[in-house]
Amino acid sequence: MGPGILTGFQKTWQVRTERPVSYDIVCRHDLFHPDNDALLVTQDNRGGSRRFVVVDSQILVHYGAAIENYFKANNIDACLHSFDAGESNKSVEQYLAVLEGLDAFPINRRNEPIIAIGGGVVTDLVGFVASSWRRGVPHINVPTTLMGYVDAAIGVKTGINFKHHKNRLGSFSAPERVLLDHTFFQTLPHRHLLNGVGEILKLAIVKEPELFSTLERHGNDCINAQFQDSTSWEILSVSVESMLAELIPNLFETELARVVDFGHTFSTALEMQDDLDLLHGEAVVIDMLLSCIIAWQRSLLSRPDLDRIFSLVLSLKLRLSSQGLHPDLLMQSLIERQHHRNGVQRVPLPMGIGSYCFVANIGLNDVTQAVIFFKEWLQDNYHEDGS
Amino acid sequence: MGPGILTGFQKTWQVRTERPVSYDIVCRHDLFHPDNDALLVTQDNRGGSRRFVVVDSQILVHYGAAIENYFKANNIDACLHSFDAGESNKSVEQYLAVLEGLDAFPINRRNEPIIAIGGGVVTDLVGFVASSWRRGVPHINVPTTLMGYVDAAIGVKTGINFKHHKNRLGSFSAPERVLLDHTFFQTLPHRHLLNGVGEILKLAIVKEPELFSTLERHGNDCINAQFQDSTSWEILSVSVESMLAELIPNLFETELARVVDFGHTFSTALEMQDDLDLLHGEAVVIDMLLSCIIAWQRSLLSRPDLDRIFSLVLSLKLRLSSQGLHPDLLMQSLIERQHHRNGVQRVPLPMGIGSYCFVANIGLNDVTQAVIFFKEWLQDNYHEDGS
Repeated sequence: MGPGILTGFQKTWQVRTERPVSYDIVCRHDLFHPDNDALLVTQDNRGGSRRFVVVDSQILVHYGAAIENYFKANNIDACLHSFDAGESNKSVEQYLAVLEGLDAFPINRRNEPIIAIGGGVVTDLVGFVASSWRRGVPHINVPTTLMGYVDAAIGVKTGINFKHHKNRLGSFSAPERVLLDHTFFQTLPHRHLLNGVGEILKLAIVKEPELFSTLERHGNDCINAQFQDSTSWEILSVSVESMLAELIPNLFETELARVVDFGHTFSTALEMQDDLDLLHGEAVVIDMLLSCIIAWQRSLLSRPDLDRIFSLVLSLKLRLSSQGLHPDLLMQSLIERQHHRNGVQRVPLPMGIGSYCFVANIGLNDVTQAVIFFKEWLQDNYHEDGS
Repeated sequence: MGPGILTGFQKTWQVRTERPVSYDIVCRHDLFHPDNDALLVTQDNRGGSRRFVVVDSQILVHYGAAIENYFKANNIDACLHSFDAGESNKSVEQYLAVLEGLDAFPINRRNEPIIAIGGGVVTDLVGFVASSWRRGVPHINVPTTLMGYVDAAIGVKTGINFKHHKNRLGSFSAPERVLLDHTFFQTLPHRHLLNGVGEILKLAIVKEPELFSTLERHGNDCINAQFQDSTSWEILSVSVESMLAELIPNLFETELARVVDFGHTFSTALEMQDDLDLLHGEAVVIDMLLSCIIAWQRSLLSRPDLDRIFSLVLSLKLRLSSQGLHPDLLMQSLIERQHHRNGVQRVPLPMGIGSYCFVANIGLNDVTQAVIFFKEWLQDNYHEDGS
């Protein structure tokens, strides 16, 4: 049958629809009190009797008995899957391990949501598990770290690392609900508290000048109070609000130029070097400082503003390092981000404190100069022991 | 800090939005003619210069040189990834292998869509790859089998098998475009042609009485013509149209009672038994016949209609088998489907030819009786050699 005869066989069908996305981010405490139904209600209020619960192993140390008791008291058959957090476990292997746990503990497709209790690694990975299982079952995020609270757990991005690429696999998949309880920070190790401060600082520099001032005045007190005091509550609320204001109108990254990517251009290369042992927020802080230097070199940021940013980082005692800052590697990370941003750099840089712009022409020389400046500054001002 | 003090710390943010879904299903032929841009245009018309193309290895035998020439003539740097189809390769291992191929051949996130050329296994798996990579990059489906054309490639369901569960992992992820070219069937093995007829028959029994009559009158001629004649074109068009009419209003399976699940209740247990060596459509046909018997047992289907269905299956020489029909196993499959349908069976059964209802109370006895009836009928009417 020749192509000539086929010219009549033409037809086109168009599929045009929308998928609704709906979830609440709710501040609640005493989540494991037997009378608190926040963890159990489902969207149609008719939750099933089983729950697959992935819990950070450190959280299990502190809250394991309370969690077990909670489900027992509510007649829920719960399977607690312990998860050792850490970037190296944000892996295909652990993704498959959680899926195998789920396979061994059947749940209904709609009214028995998977529950993730832990930091960003746990909620990111479990979100991907939930979005993959039966093409998507509901999940509830309970962030227990500051990083999760203000960033990782409140949006729709799920993911795992692949072949040393940060979050290379994943999905845009909304949780059914996010439960925020800042009392978890009472048992959060100091380093992980500072890790989350990095993301708060990100928003402060490019979007929230008042938050920046608050951090200058009260940041240290909040850290010392493990973010349990009323000023911390204000900081947390402003941070979540500010993050959501960026996320919600662009939930699926239709727009690739995103201010929340500030500090997320060079950081991936740093994070994925196992020997550097950097947490996500720590890598973001270093990236932000390099980006600020580039902004200053381009006269987007004044020298006083640059100094103010560096001073705040110092005063908050955020963990810095000069390790692994090879300009070639940082450029590779930028090129990779360029693929991710569809062929254009779209790097957010601060324009003064509280404002930003996007640039598309950062070159090796910019990066090299920024690294030199940063290393010299570190040598003069920063002592690895935090003193 | 006690819970009493925390009562003031209450706040809720609501996220309410919609994710637009838009794609076209386009009938085109001569897809690999250098002047045909159907494979290359992207949604914004500014396609990049690279394409990652996953091709069924049998298609490569017939069209490999044409495909290579096509991309070369259009100055596209294409990486052809050969894929051996077959249910056993719809696996985590092959999913990861394709992802590794993609990792070695970087593409832009938006304007260099992944292209899947093959049957349902290829388009299902590649769809899941595309939806996972960077949380979703575009992909184009080019079904080369009848099954893909009328069913697997035109919707938004992607998937791979996991732990002997059919399509346990996957996503709802719309292709950027589907290109339908029925001239591929010219080289499609007879068995795979019949495999697709199974899904066409499904729609005919429960939704399209005219299509059922057409199959009775012309089905054999169409099969003999490898679906290249004008009657086949009508059958293909009606089938795609009928399928889309079900899919589009319920693209993400908000409604769990789906008539297109007819024949997909017991079939998964049959398909996943490697030793039975059943194709998807073959398992679906057996499931449909068992379901029709149950419908007849319940007086939903008259004996003449039941006979008409069995006669058509016989006359089309669809491949049948009495192997693996253990009632216990079929019930397990039903229970599994019940989890998938959120705790309720929701099994579609025909009510006469062209209509359907859902039932929720099929028990072991129904299944056992249906298997006995089916095996006896097979013994009296069907000869494994197709005579």
